[in-house]
Amino acid sequence: MRFFSRRNVDFLLNEVFEIQKLNRFPYFADHDVETFKMIIDTAAKISEEMMFPYFKPMDTEPPRWENGQVYVNKAILPFMEEMGQGGWIQAEKPYDVGGQQLPLAVKVLANYVFGAANYSMYVYPMLTAGAANLIYHFGTREMKDTYLEKMYSGKWQGTMALTEPDAGSSLGDLTTTAEPTDQGYYMIKGKKIFISAAKSDVVDNVVHLMLARLKDGPAGVAGISLFIVPEYRVNEAGELEFNDVVCSGIEHKLGYRGSPICQLSMGDEKNCRGWLVGQEGQGLAQMFMMMNEERINVGVGAISKISGAYYAALEYAQQRKQGRRPDQKDPAAPMVELIEHADIKRMLLFQKAVMEGSLALAVQTALYQDLMNVGENAEENGLLVDLLIPILKTYPSEAGILATSAAIQVHGGYGYCGDFPVEQYYRDIRIDPIHEGTTGIQGQDLLGRKVSMKQGRAFQLYISEVEKTIMESEGYPELAKQTQSLKEAVVLMKELTAELLDKKAWITREAFLADSVLFLDFMSQIAIAWQWLKLMSVAVKMLRTQVSGPDHSFYQGKIYAGRYFFDYELIKIYSLAVRLRSDDKVTVEVTKTYFED
Amino acid sequence: MRFFSRRNVDFLLNEVFEIQKLNRFPYFADHDVETFKMIIDTAAKISEEMMFPYFKPMDTEPPRWENGQVYVNKAILPFMEEMGQGGWIQAEKPYDVGGQQLPLAVKVLANYVFGAANYSMYVYPMLTAGAANLIYHFGTREMKDTYLEKMYSGKWQGTMALTEPDAGSSLGDLTTTAEPTDQGYYMIKGKKIFISAAKSDVVDNVVHLMLARLKDGPAGVAGISLFIVPEYRVNEAGELEFNDVVCSGIEHKLGYRGSPICQLSMGDEKNCRGWLVGQEGQGLAQMFMMMNEERINVGVGAISKISGAYYAALEYAQQRKQGRRPDQKDPAAPMVELIEHADIKRMLLFQKAVMEGSLALAVQTALYQDLMNVGENAEENGLLVDLLIPILKTYPSEAGILATSAAIQVHGGYGYCGDFPVEQYYRDIRIDPIHEGTTGIQGQDLLGRKVSMKQGRAFQLYISEVEKTIMESEGYPELAKQTQSLKEAVVLMKELTAELLDKKAWITREAFLADSVLFLDFMSQIAIAWQWLKLMSVAVKMLRTQVSGPDHSFYQGKIYAGRYFFDYELIKIYSLAVRLRSDDKVTVEVTKTYFED
Repeated sequence: MRFFSRRNVDFLLNEVFEIQKLNRFPYFADHDVETFKMIIDTAAKISEEMMFPYFKPMDTEPPRWENGQVYVNKAILPFMEEMGQGGWIQAEKPYDVGGQQLPLAVKVLANYVFGAANYSMYVYPMLTAGAANLIYHFGTREMKDTYLEKMYSGKWQGTMALTEPDAGSSLGDLTTTAEPTDQGYYMIKGKKIFISAAKSDVVDNVVHLMLARLKDGPAGVAGISLFIVPEYRVNEAGELEFNDVVCSGIEHKLGYRGSPICQLSMGDEKNCRGWLVGQEGQGLAQMFMMMNEERINVGVGAISKISGAYYAALEYAQQRKQGRRPDQKDPAAPMVELIEHADIKRMLLFQKAVMEGSLALAVQTALYQDLMNVGENAEENGLLVDLLIPILKTYPSEAGILATSAAIQVHGGYGYCGDFPVEQYYRDIRIDPIHEGTTGIQGQDLLGRKVSMKQGRAFQLYISEVEKTIMESEGYPELAKQTQSLKEAVVLMKELTAELLDKKAWITREAFLADSVLFLDFMSQIAIAWQWLKLMSVAVKMLRTQVSGPDHSFYQGKIYAGRYFFDYELIKIYSLAVRLRSDDKVTVEVTKTYFED
Repeated sequence: MRFFSRRNVDFLLNEVFEIQKLNRFPYFADHDVETFKMIIDTAAKISEEMMFPYFKPMDTEPPRWENGQVYVNKAILPFMEEMGQGGWIQAEKPYDVGGQQLPLAVKVLANYVFGAANYSMYVYPMLTAGAANLIYHFGTREMKDTYLEKMYSGKWQGTMALTEPDAGSSLGDLTTTAEPTDQGYYMIKGKKIFISAAKSDVVDNVVHLMLARLKDGPAGVAGISLFIVPEYRVNEAGELEFNDVVCSGIEHKLGYRGSPICQLSMGDEKNCRGWLVGQEGQGLAQMFMMMNEERINVGVGAISKISGAYYAALEYAQQRKQGRRPDQKDPAAPMVELIEHADIKRMLLFQKAVMEGSLALAVQTALYQDLMNVGENAEENGLLVDLLIPILKTYPSEAGILATSAAIQVHGGYGYCGDFPVEQYYRDIRIDPIHEGTTGIQGQDLLGRKVSMKQGRAFQLYISEVEKTIMESEGYPELAKQTQSLKEAVVLMKELTAELLDKKAWITREAFLADSVLFLDFMSQIAIAWQWLKLMSVAVKMLRTQVSGPDHSFYQGKIYAGRYFFDYELIKIYSLAVRLRSDDKVTVEVTKTYFED
């Protein structure tokens, strides 16, 4: 069973974004199309052999909690070893720490392959990478020596431990405390919930990158610092000793079942130590490095699930016969495959358009990050990454609900049943609009911060990028209609955003932000259309070279999916704009009393 | 835990639709506000005491299949007895068959209450009622004597048995055969799948209303007849004997787990008898009576699930404290309830608007049916029912995916966990766009048949009904904006529909129907807006009478939810219209080859 398209991965890598050209920078000098091919070959092999076979079993037999231990699927152990031995966890890091100096644009595509095969399994190394990254950037020499090798090798698991029973989206209210000692560490006391992969019987130790409040520190965000709180600490003899971090339970979840989300209790025996990472009070700011990384990962994970569901639906539609074409009046005529029906093709094009457009946006964002990392227009590229993160995190997460739903619908009644994988992808993806910052948080981030930050510079840079794509596509009369549509969309985006920011001066912040989720949706449609115009331009260029056979079909598929996106999805911005321009703020005005009946 | 609003049910019954006025017709003469109150009181009591306590247990411990028997939750037995004793199954039927001559408009509201408490449980009497109804209308005297009392008493279960492994949406392809004998019955042989509640250990017998093909009959729909195929037949001695109908398995499903969907095998021992209902070759036409009834039931069931999820989300939002209002800068200020946040109110208003607007449409449709049944403008009211069925079936089913998803989102991470009911409602509702005719089938029904049937008379009548509501609301300047919006929407609906029907003459049927699902969505938004304008008009009228306290809040709640619907939902028709008017038929043009990559 397929869950991704290798051809499409190669297309993005080599034809659309030409990632091999990054080797003009010394950091990436050893890479070329061949090394990328090897990386993706290996990712494909791992995903097919070590991950996808456990996609279903990890769902039907989820982790069990027993007396503080969490028993997970045993296949996670060899997989973590493979991730460690293959250098996947620190792949983008410099050679001197065992990395491969791999472009993130390539890593994102490998992540997509892994996530499509089994996202619940991929979460283990993914979170470990993010946690290790925080130590890598902000930790002391000693911390790096203590943790990084163990984490990079996959022997120790990493987590991000933020959420508490009474502090979810509102992180400033967290109450886990850190009390300084004169031993160089802090005593940690508190509870965390919903911590993914925070305990299991397949790793020796779990290293929590945890936010806690300094005892007697200021209220809100200013009082929050970042700590390393391992489940087992290394004592002076170099041995592991228990650090009083107890997993007090796991949740029964709708999906994403292969990865336990854990409740943690720190310091019940007054023996939990945490080590400050970076400066006191800088916790949230530092955590944002990991959070941004994980937000990209969540977006890519959502794309992966759409991909798995899409290829399952496609395969079903290609094989299953049902009914006849509408113009066929003879009831004795043979039945046709589902994929012959326009409404089925509509649902397949929707999934394909959402998935491939989002995947292109993911590679685009990672490419900006690669350029930033090597110092190429670092500020500009960093701003582009910042602006795109809420879109990349949210669009596939939310559109993915409907895309995986469409995959179910293509299957008819069978889609609702456990014999087919689509219902699991549908359950799995529903976590994505929630974790690592809800859609509401992302909307506020985009409208309340990102579009206006640095005097709107990120937004200006973004517009230039989109306009560059439009200029390129103007060379292709075949794309005149889509080019014109995107041009008009950009005009509307500029006008609308300016109007909204103008209003900010004279309406309350509450009214200004009330529809920020709709603004995020508006911006997302345009961002995905931008990527589609880019993909279509490459496809048109290739079609002009008289390709034939599978290549011809492949590029034509891009043209049709792109046309679908412009014809059926981008047009939604016109209704959204009507709403976003309205000064009638019903969601602000309605009070809680009026919900009582 | 609440799952419906009694106040809202009374509002629809007594204030909006004034169902008591039906007692001007002799058939309903014994009914008034008091008898309706008693009916709803009883439904509420049954739903709270006998149904909702099993909502979760029936999900976590779904039916088990063992050697042909299906073991279901034992609470279904007393519930079926209660349904039988209370006369619920034939409540709308005449007194002489034990009915209560209850308006369907009231039954629909009782069904809504039952479905919100536990849809999987409600399916048992609901399907029994539909199956019995077919026998009631088309069966012989002998069939009625044999089956109806047993079914009305809840002792025998009824089903509709249509779907086969190779004939889902394409019913004309079913292959179950019926071979005539000279004994007055037919020998049945074949297989059915996805048959809800087709076997259980709590009823004595299951009566399948089954479509089968006459042996050597014509291909397609013309060869299909309707049969009663009981699991146990009554022999000449009046005893039950096995009729060779075997349940060969049940499906593991995403949701809707309390009701098994069964595979049936008929005639493995060449001993399965079926009795023809009505005329040979009329099977599908007759089955449509049950199908239309069940399509309304599916729509109402979807509304029920949105309702259950909405009240769970509302309660959570009223109790859970998180964060502060955007204009509050002091991090030490106390946290506020979730319901104080505009984005949370937006999600709650969305759920409320979808649910209450759809519920009004359900009562509206049932009222047309009541009028038809008593012969009041029977043809006109019948046409209105026909036109509205695809909308009533589909809109809450599809919008319900997003509404129950919003209920999850209001809960944040908790919504994804099994301790709260919303994730179950989210799983349960996903069957509704599939069973009793997929959304694709409903779209084709509306655009391909309903809007043009009888020279467009149904559509004309519908427009008159909407215009009547607009005329009434013109008396309320408070609703000037919404009245104007609906007026413009109706103009667009007329123009667009005329354009589409014009094109029918010169484009292929495939191209004509390609976007019928979008047309159904377009029509649905307007139908729900129509109902909201009606609800708002009553609310405005009542607010003018200086109501206070809970009544004031209740009517204000209607105004805000209505405003929400017009401001955020109805506007979608403008983007949909852009698409529907386009002659660029990408979903028709793309061929299966272009999906290969």
